[in-house]
Amino acid sequence: MRTLNVDLGDRSYPIHIGEGLLDDPRFFAPHIRGRQVAIVTNETIAPLYLERLQKTLADYAQIAVVLPDGEAFKQWETLQLIFDALLQARHDRKTTLIALGGGVVGDMTGFAAACYQRGVDFIQVPTTLLSQVDSSVGGKTGINHPLGKNMVGAFYQPQAVVIDAASLRTLPARELSAGLAEVIKYGLICDEPFLAWLEAHVEQLLALDSAALAEAIERSCAAKARVVGADERESGVRATLNLGHTFGHAIETHMGYGVWLHGEAVAAGTVMALQMSHLLGWLTAAERDRGMRLLRRAGLPIVPPKEMTAEHFLEHMAVDKKVLDGRLRLVLLQGLGAAVVTADFPREILEETLRTDFQALADQLGEH
Amino acid sequence: MRTLNVDLGDRSYPIHIGEGLLDDPRFFAPHIRGRQVAIVTNETIAPLYLERLQKTLADYAQIAVVLPDGEAFKQWETLQLIFDALLQARHDRKTTLIALGGGVVGDMTGFAAACYQRGVDFIQVPTTLLSQVDSSVGGKTGINHPLGKNMVGAFYQPQAVVIDAASLRTLPARELSAGLAEVIKYGLICDEPFLAWLEAHVEQLLALDSAALAEAIERSCAAKARVVGADERESGVRATLNLGHTFGHAIETHMGYGVWLHGEAVAAGTVMALQMSHLLGWLTAAERDRGMRLLRRAGLPIVPPKEMTAEHFLEHMAVDKKVLDGRLRLVLLQGLGAAVVTADFPREILEETLRTDFQALADQLGEH
Repeated sequence: MRTLNVDLGDRSYPIHIGEGLLDDPRFFAPHIRGRQVAIVTNETIAPLYLERLQKTLADYAQIAVVLPDGEAFKQWETLQLIFDALLQARHDRKTTLIALGGGVVGDMTGFAAACYQRGVDFIQVPTTLLSQVDSSVGGKTGINHPLGKNMVGAFYQPQAVVIDAASLRTLPARELSAGLAEVIKYGLICDEPFLAWLEAHVEQLLALDSAALAEAIERSCAAKARVVGADERESGVRATLNLGHTFGHAIETHMGYGVWLHGEAVAAGTVMALQMSHLLGWLTAAERDRGMRLLRRAGLPIVPPKEMTAEHFLEHMAVDKKVLDGRLRLVLLQGLGAAVVTADFPREILEETLRTDFQALADQLGEH
Repeated sequence: MRTLNVDLGDRSYPIHIGEGLLDDPRFFAPHIRGRQVAIVTNETIAPLYLERLQKTLADYAQIAVVLPDGEAFKQWETLQLIFDALLQARHDRKTTLIALGGGVVGDMTGFAAACYQRGVDFIQVPTTLLSQVDSSVGGKTGINHPLGKNMVGAFYQPQAVVIDAASLRTLPARELSAGLAEVIKYGLICDEPFLAWLEAHVEQLLALDSAALAEAIERSCAAKARVVGADERESGVRATLNLGHTFGHAIETHMGYGVWLHGEAVAAGTVMALQMSHLLGWLTAAERDRGMRLLRRAGLPIVPPKEMTAEHFLEHMAVDKKVLDGRLRLVLLQGLGAAVVTADFPREILEETLRTDFQALADQLGEH
């Protein structure tokens, strides 16, 4: 078992990473103030892990809230199910919400915790790779709006993150790959040695090798904890974590939430950011291709949806949260492992990026 | 013009109190970071003050969101109108929301600001006495849930509170009285000299005497700012501001939001707290009657709804936010000007309070 710390003053919290943590009350008890807990999960995860976690938390008065599964349900009506259950069971301000599931469950449970009675405690128990390495750490919570992803939410930190890496054994291969998109992102934005390590271990990760997974999760969480500790509310460096996300959000919004997995959209969006960085002269073609090749080896799409035109992207990106004072800010790379957030690029380069034939780029990559 | 300060470290903000402030850009400009403002108001206030405030803020790109009026609309569907408007007009993270109206507008606008893109700035411009002396100061924001009032919300501080006392001239008499319930509350919980001042000036306040109103608003805001500065998140002394509110919320919930005005419910609830304090031996009958008499002179109900039984109260109070670990905590008085928050009372005294014939108590009061 390994423990990292997210350093945020009086909102600091630990990330516990290991196998079998789900069954061990010692990782939960120190973070629960009251006598009530509410486990929030979804229809897919409940049959796999709910009973085990209920047994681990047998000492508490507990309720379980089982939400429908999927990004399409990351909305107010679903959130309301959590409030309904808490109020019906008369949970008070000392209750602790426990998010058992992937990013959607974590984001909604965290936002429910931020809002219920103006704020109660919560613990993240992420069961997907994507949520383990990204969304469960850092306190971004929220729901989608028909006009934009994550447009309604809060910065609200959990009391702890408990990552049971064994839960990845039940994760569909497609979702494992989606999680790897965010893992690869850390290498690209701030850790070139990690990128090289991933190139050497991507097959082991896809084969669920325990040691490789633990290493990848820990290095990813450590990178995220470092960035969040330096910039909790995303006024600066934290925005680099959004590499590929502005393009990716446009894909998710255009295709309808849940059609492309978040990690898949981020992968294609990352390729677009790599290409734009290349067109700006900041990355060589070989560096761009190195990123694309690793994403493809991880089982991820590296070509945006064929039905999306440049105009579609521009339209969706205009309402992105990264837009400040009407200027579009993007995360780009000035080298592998060196991300910047910038609005300082010619509009024509963005348009050239959006008109790139990514299929042709992919076709010329070769195998390794 | 008078300015008070709410002292909350890096979340500190000023309260400006005066006549005609609505027309003066100098009270707004220092608190607006970006180029966009969104004025949120309601159907009643818009015809009276919206155009004036739009003119004052003519230098900014602005939208106006006009909500339906009333506590019944303090709910998610109405909040959604604010998000819709912000997203349609592509307001970014640097936008400033401006709450122009009473407590419902202020609570919803503040909560919308807390959640929109995980938090944007807002300014309170309260136009009712109740919101000027209470809800606009202190950062409590939120909406109601069918199972309880203010059950979903956030602690989120404004950038400034701008109180134009001249707006009270358009306030219905019933709402002026409702505001006085909270003004009297400050005297009862922490400022006996203010209580005596109110006894001497209640007729002037009801007649909208400018000097008396400014004095009452300032002393109320000063009391609130002091308490909030000492305990922003209501872990202790701030809870004393809820005198009469636990009983009052039960009245509002039972009668349906908006049937009794919040201040009216608080007035009747305060009488119940006075009576319970008396039954505990903490207030003399004369002290209880002094509070009741002042509330009645202010035009407020001092008898709870006849259709509400003791059982109704107990049922509604069991889900109140003041319930911790299953124990009901109430704000009671150990003397006029000396409130305590306590769960340390015999259950029978609470039940005796709920069975009191308040009409008979009112009938024996006499005139002054």
